[in-house]
Amino acid sequence: MIIDVHGHYTTAPAALGAWRDLQIAALKDPSLCADPKALRISDDEIRESIETNQLAKMRERGSDLTIFSPRASFMAHHIGDFNTSAAWAAICNELCHRVSQLFPDHFIGAAMLPQSPGVDPRTCIPELRKCVEQYGFVGINLNPDPSGGHWKEPPLTDRWWYPIYEVMVEYDIPAMIHVSTSCNACFHTTGAHYLNADTTAFMQLIQGDLFKDFPTLKFLIPHGGGAVPYHWGRFRGLAQEMKKPLLKDHLLNNVFFDTCVYHQPGIDLLTQVIPVDNILFASEMIGAVRGIDPETGHHYDDTKRYILATPHLTEEQRFKVFEGNARRVFPRLDAALKAKGL
Amino acid sequence: MIIDVHGHYTTAPAALGAWRDLQIAALKDPSLCADPKALRISDDEIRESIETNQLAKMRERGSDLTIFSPRASFMAHHIGDFNTSAAWAAICNELCHRVSQLFPDHFIGAAMLPQSPGVDPRTCIPELRKCVEQYGFVGINLNPDPSGGHWKEPPLTDRWWYPIYEVMVEYDIPAMIHVSTSCNACFHTTGAHYLNADTTAFMQLIQGDLFKDFPTLKFLIPHGGGAVPYHWGRFRGLAQEMKKPLLKDHLLNNVFFDTCVYHQPGIDLLTQVIPVDNILFASEMIGAVRGIDPETGHHYDDTKRYILATPHLTEEQRFKVFEGNARRVFPRLDAALKAKGL
Repeated sequence: MIIDVHGHYTTAPAALGAWRDLQIAALKDPSLCADPKALRISDDEIRESIETNQLAKMRERGSDLTIFSPRASFMAHHIGDFNTSAAWAAICNELCHRVSQLFPDHFIGAAMLPQSPGVDPRTCIPELRKCVEQYGFVGINLNPDPSGGHWKEPPLTDRWWYPIYEVMVEYDIPAMIHVSTSCNACFHTTGAHYLNADTTAFMQLIQGDLFKDFPTLKFLIPHGGGAVPYHWGRFRGLAQEMKKPLLKDHLLNNVFFDTCVYHQPGIDLLTQVIPVDNILFASEMIGAVRGIDPETGHHYDDTKRYILATPHLTEEQRFKVFEGNARRVFPRLDAALKAKGL
Repeated sequence: MIIDVHGHYTTAPAALGAWRDLQIAALKDPSLCADPKALRISDDEIRESIETNQLAKMRERGSDLTIFSPRASFMAHHIGDFNTSAAWAAICNELCHRVSQLFPDHFIGAAMLPQSPGVDPRTCIPELRKCVEQYGFVGINLNPDPSGGHWKEPPLTDRWWYPIYEVMVEYDIPAMIHVSTSCNACFHTTGAHYLNADTTAFMQLIQGDLFKDFPTLKFLIPHGGGAVPYHWGRFRGLAQEMKKPLLKDHLLNNVFFDTCVYHQPGIDLLTQVIPVDNILFASEMIGAVRGIDPETGHHYDDTKRYILATPHLTEEQRFKVFEGNARRVFPRLDAALKAKGL
């Protein structure tokens, strides 16, 4: 079984974007009103948006199940206030839930949180609980920078974030650390802000001792960990200068990396440097990089090919990357699969 | 000949730091005065600070010449105003000049600029000219984020920066894109901000068309290019989505990477992915990571070992990385060496 732990609903029907545009316009023009009930998207529209896109590619590439969350760049937590994000997150999560209901063998949900800059993260807990308890979601996406490229929130090791972590531990769900659109002109969203956030989050975790307070808390760093595996020596050396334990003891019981690295040498480095138990298969398809690599003739984001081709994994290790680790890091996913006899 | 293109004067005598502390204190307390003339550092003090540190390690590791600039994390352009930076940059550059005079066979200067957040970069030009014309410096360090982690300046492709580029082209000197201390609690200076800046700068260059306006302008991205080589497929794919030329045509005539990557797999990836003509030997020694790697028994930042050990370079290619490329990217360095018959 091949589980892709990083997929977003990037292909939602156009009515979703139109509703969001109206919601944003209403922030400035009180005569407008974006009523969530006014948004109508039919099951057929959802089916088509998935069958012709993500599911078609999953069949073509041979993956079975995707952990599916709302489009990351559309979370845009910097827009409006908590109520803006609350309405938007509820809509986006419900759509992912409907995808998982329509295609229960192929998609299972992960939640976007209704974060808003400077707003206490505990305001996100009701939406989080709803997604886990009512929708059967198995993880969340946590945005370390809801300001969208201005980085005004405290580091992830700050007690500011603890209310979220307490609920994650209660449910035994991991968080993918995933920023959204950059509204800072210096940072291209998918070419700089995403990767920077991955690197930044990992370094925050090195500096702190978060997992002393939450020994079972789990974070997934997407996009192959940003710059981290490429600079693994630097990070080991920095931890050493700070008198921290070895990274394998300090962080690797709690921190995992996905395989959204879009060329063979990158995956070769990832699988050489990071222990196999910490690597989870993912493609973030259909996402930032949709084209075909002229050097290979295959899609850049067809990461399964790289995993299959890398010389650093045995068959048993490939099983961990494709399935075993995902079941371990996402226990509610494992339980859902076992309930189906899988 | 082995040329290290990335060294900072991180070991300057303590009087330098004390003067800077006084300068910072004087910003708040007008009764204090930090007069540059009051700073006395003797040649013997400089000699000792270099001979027992950088030069000792250069001899031990077998490198010959270091392009030497003021300590990057101490530039701290976010402190005070232009006058603050102007006085501080003048002092720091003069010290590097004195190092290059005391050890002319082993050090040659690169300039720190007196940048200040929001201040027109053309204010940096007099210091730049002095460093090139009077001190014989061969390059500059350009800080894309003088705010220190808040990223308020326009991207490097903006015309805001053009006055600097015009002078760089006039002198045929490259700029290393190098940020300074982060004053944003989210970003660890050397573990996040430095690497993020490298990635950010490269992505800005992909988005723009700067080298159409400045065909001979040259940038060196330090720390092995941040996340860029590890995600080379992602960057190639993003450029493709933006209908830009292939990266080798779009950027690689003008953009170069150093080898400050502190483990063998990282250097192996760098030398596999990035064309050899774009890789310049560097260690940033003595810098962020000073310890000994328990996995190898050698210093993390002894990058020469990784270059020698990588399977991706022939002897001829190693010559380019160690010497040839530095002479090409820093033409004034080449001229200075030739003037000595080297």
